[in-house]
Amino acid sequence: MEYYGSHISRLIEALNGLPGIGVKSAQRLAFHIVGMPKEQVKNLAEALVSARENVHYCRECCTLTDEELCPICRSEKRNHRQIMVVENSRDLAAYEKTGRYDGVYHVLQGAISPMLGIGPSDIRLKELMQRLQGDVEEVIIATNPSLEGETTATYISKLVKPTGIRVTRIASGVPVGGDIENIDEVTLERALMGRVEL
Amino acid sequence: MEYYGSHISRLIEALNGLPGIGVKSAQRLAFHIVGMPKEQVKNLAEALVSARENVHYCRECCTLTDEELCPICRSEKRNHRQIMVVENSRDLAAYEKTGRYDGVYHVLQGAISPMLGIGPSDIRLKELMQRLQGDVEEVIIATNPSLEGETTATYISKLVKPTGIRVTRIASGVPVGGDIENIDEVTLERALMGRVEL
Repeated sequence: MEYYGSHISRLIEALNGLPGIGVKSAQRLAFHIVGMPKEQVKNLAEALVSARENVHYCRECCTLTDEELCPICRSEKRNHRQIMVVENSRDLAAYEKTGRYDGVYHVLQGAISPMLGIGPSDIRLKELMQRLQGDVEEVIIATNPSLEGETTATYISKLVKPTGIRVTRIASGVPVGGDIENIDEVTLERALMGRVEL
Repeated sequence: MEYYGSHISRLIEALNGLPGIGVKSAQRLAFHIVGMPKEQVKNLAEALVSARENVHYCRECCTLTDEELCPICRSEKRNHRQIMVVENSRDLAAYEKTGRYDGVYHVLQGAISPMLGIGPSDIRLKELMQRLQGDVEEVIIATNPSLEGETTATYISKLVKPTGIRVTRIASGVPVGGDIENIDEVTLERALMGRVEL
């Protein structure tokens, strides 16, 4: 990409390395950035560096945050005896957006995947077990309904059950607003098996 | 997005302002960036700032570059008597990738669009006309085959013709590898009108 000059080429290359950004998007972004007010570009660059510099895992729930304890673990309004186990911070955010959960979280930072060589010791399971030594009533497993998520859910439930703490799994079924004719068989089967009395 | 902490939220917001990056992509990118090696994040941040600081329009063809003259205008191997007029630097790059054009370019940095209030004086037309006072044989108009691109092409051809310089327009027709049954009628009509002897 010599025809752009070295600075733009370097930017395109750096953007192209990000997930979901191909060469075309990187070009489009680079030309947009080059046309942005200088202040805004500086702000973006600073946001990048400061996020990277200041972020670490919450001491309690292992989510990504910039303080020692994340805002949720710090909150006195949350029910600290109910722990929802999710795979990553984006899943936590998705549940927070519902506004209907007032317990706390535990972020595994991954899921067990024999195919990718990710074992139980590669995710934040030890940290979860440590938290269960405190005063906990229920562990809600909200890993993804994928092969890896299900494997992780089964593994965790086997670990937690002997402690006597209640272990639950979020329901699997037809998504609200979904079209039954377009939903895969496994989901339909799950929806049938999980049917509730009306 | 309080649950992320202020540094990550600021990064998500800054990324979300870029074209084609919605909240979900911005979140995904932010979490990826936070997990990247520090060196790489710094490199990306520097690439942003240095591209913005160093970029300006080529004195000759108005493409975005980091020197006074872009590499193509500087090159002695190119035919400086043949000028291809394109809307933006990405279109220039697309033609460069073909490797089949050895003339130079003129980048309009836009197209005439009465709907968006972009008139002839808002694009780099004056600069093109100035270049035509030199030794130029042909102006190839390679604006997009859209309403704006066609309007711009017609406008330019009317400006250039009185100078006696040859004005051509890139061919419009069925794209190579395209499926005739899926191509719109206007393109099919153009392909028919532009048919060539075999």
